[in-house]
Amino acid sequence: MNKEEYFIKQFSNNKVIGDDGAFIDGFVYSMDAFFENVHFKKEWMSLKQIAYKSMIVNISDAIVMNAIPLYALLSVAIPKSYTEDDLKELSKGFKKAAKEFGIEIIGGDTISNEKLDISVTIISKTSKPIFRKGVKRDDLLCYTGTLGTSKRDLERLFQNKDISKKSKFIKPVLNQKFFYEIAPYITASMDISDGLFFELERLSKASQVGFEFFDEIGNDIGTSGEEYEILFSFNQKNLEKIKKIAKKHKIKLNIFAKAVKGKYRTDCKNHHF
Amino acid sequence: MNKEEYFIKQFSNNKVIGDDGAFIDGFVYSMDAFFENVHFKKEWMSLKQIAYKSMIVNISDAIVMNAIPLYALLSVAIPKSYTEDDLKELSKGFKKAAKEFGIEIIGGDTISNEKLDISVTIISKTSKPIFRKGVKRDDLLCYTGTLGTSKRDLERLFQNKDISKKSKFIKPVLNQKFFYEIAPYITASMDISDGLFFELERLSKASQVGFEFFDEIGNDIGTSGEEYEILFSFNQKNLEKIKKIAKKHKIKLNIFAKAVKGKYRTDCKNHHF
Repeated sequence: MNKEEYFIKQFSNNKVIGDDGAFIDGFVYSMDAFFENVHFKKEWMSLKQIAYKSMIVNISDAIVMNAIPLYALLSVAIPKSYTEDDLKELSKGFKKAAKEFGIEIIGGDTISNEKLDISVTIISKTSKPIFRKGVKRDDLLCYTGTLGTSKRDLERLFQNKDISKKSKFIKPVLNQKFFYEIAPYITASMDISDGLFFELERLSKASQVGFEFFDEIGNDIGTSGEEYEILFSFNQKNLEKIKKIAKKHKIKLNIFAKAVKGKYRTDCKNHHF
Repeated sequence: MNKEEYFIKQFSNNKVIGDDGAFIDGFVYSMDAFFENVHFKKEWMSLKQIAYKSMIVNISDAIVMNAIPLYALLSVAIPKSYTEDDLKELSKGFKKAAKEFGIEIIGGDTISNEKLDISVTIISKTSKPIFRKGVKRDDLLCYTGTLGTSKRDLERLFQNKDISKKSKFIKPVLNQKFFYEIAPYITASMDISDGLFFELERLSKASQVGFEFFDEIGNDIGTSGEEYEILFSFNQKNLEKIKKIAKKHKIKLNIFAKAVKGKYRTDCKNHHF
């Protein structure tokens, strides 16, 4: 059992834990850490990119629960060596993400530290939350976009090789418009932050189903973390509707499995810096 | 200008920043960092005490805005060396504080890190928030309890001397029952986390008033941080009511100044590890 799971278990009498965010009375609350040498190395990204990504990975949690992010709180631990220009770059990244998603930064805490460690809390609103527990037997399973590039790019970064400025590892792309439009037609959803296989295990546990794969999925695809693509399930009757919405938003759909009786477990380690 | 102020200024078009928490639509949102070697050294406190204090300093923010804390989100970065027993101790501290204040821990994030770094978000509810900006000219200024012991105890810790297990530095005491009862009769409030002088500067800035002190306040008292006593102001007509409530809850009141035209600035550094 990893430490995260252990900790979650400590509070597991709590029904709201287990999704990307906690849903209570129309609000979704989510909080994620984004720490130097845990989630990024400072050589890999500009300060603006770091601040931006720290927001996006949190906003992603809200979106996949069908919630509209409203407010953010930031806890930012900053190395003493940082100049005022560095701080300006950081705040540009936070503000860029906030502006893009119509979020107001309402507070938080700033402290001096040895390294740059960010935690972000996002407060969102939803009238129809979507959970991980909603997969029904015979539902189709689908993920958006292309998986594998984040893992490849992370490996290149570890080898001190350049990666594209457009890499999802640097700048995740959230497809919120597509998601909000398919939301009425899906049964469960989550983002792919720890790799498809790992997320499927979570989905299996939450929904008490197994998966029958249509084709084998390679490890390069199934263990690529930090993709922030959307994993979702839906009743087959909604297939054409979802395809149409995907076409409109130019989103690639990968329908890769069917929910069946049983459970799904992976032996693969999740690939996440 | 310190880094915290710089950062806050970046988002200062936002009216909700500037109090202990952000008040929006009946809710108060607050978030504070509690980092190893920034706010505590691990030799000073048990893991349970650390987790407990990380919650209490955040809960304090909610209380002094006259809000009832409801939910907490935790971002906990844990050294790889910690055992399962260590994690159990940590979670005991979080749960103790949560239980004491009727708070539900609804989620968050746990990661591996070099040191123990905690950020806590508290979501609270209030029908009548109290802000820092409410001090009116001629109001009386008051703080609760005794100031100075946290500074003294922190100095002892730095000298590797023992301190009392009951030290407020280890276990801050919040007087929420007293506070909620005086709330209808006060004009402004905040907690004393960075020292009385420093908080008075914030109060002066928020309320656009100066202070006429009744007696000189020594640096040992005025610069002692992490006290979590309550600093508040009230119209003189409510003096007897407040005294009566304080007597009932056995709270010591220190009425030390009157709000006047002008502004208050301190040259003292705030004393905060």
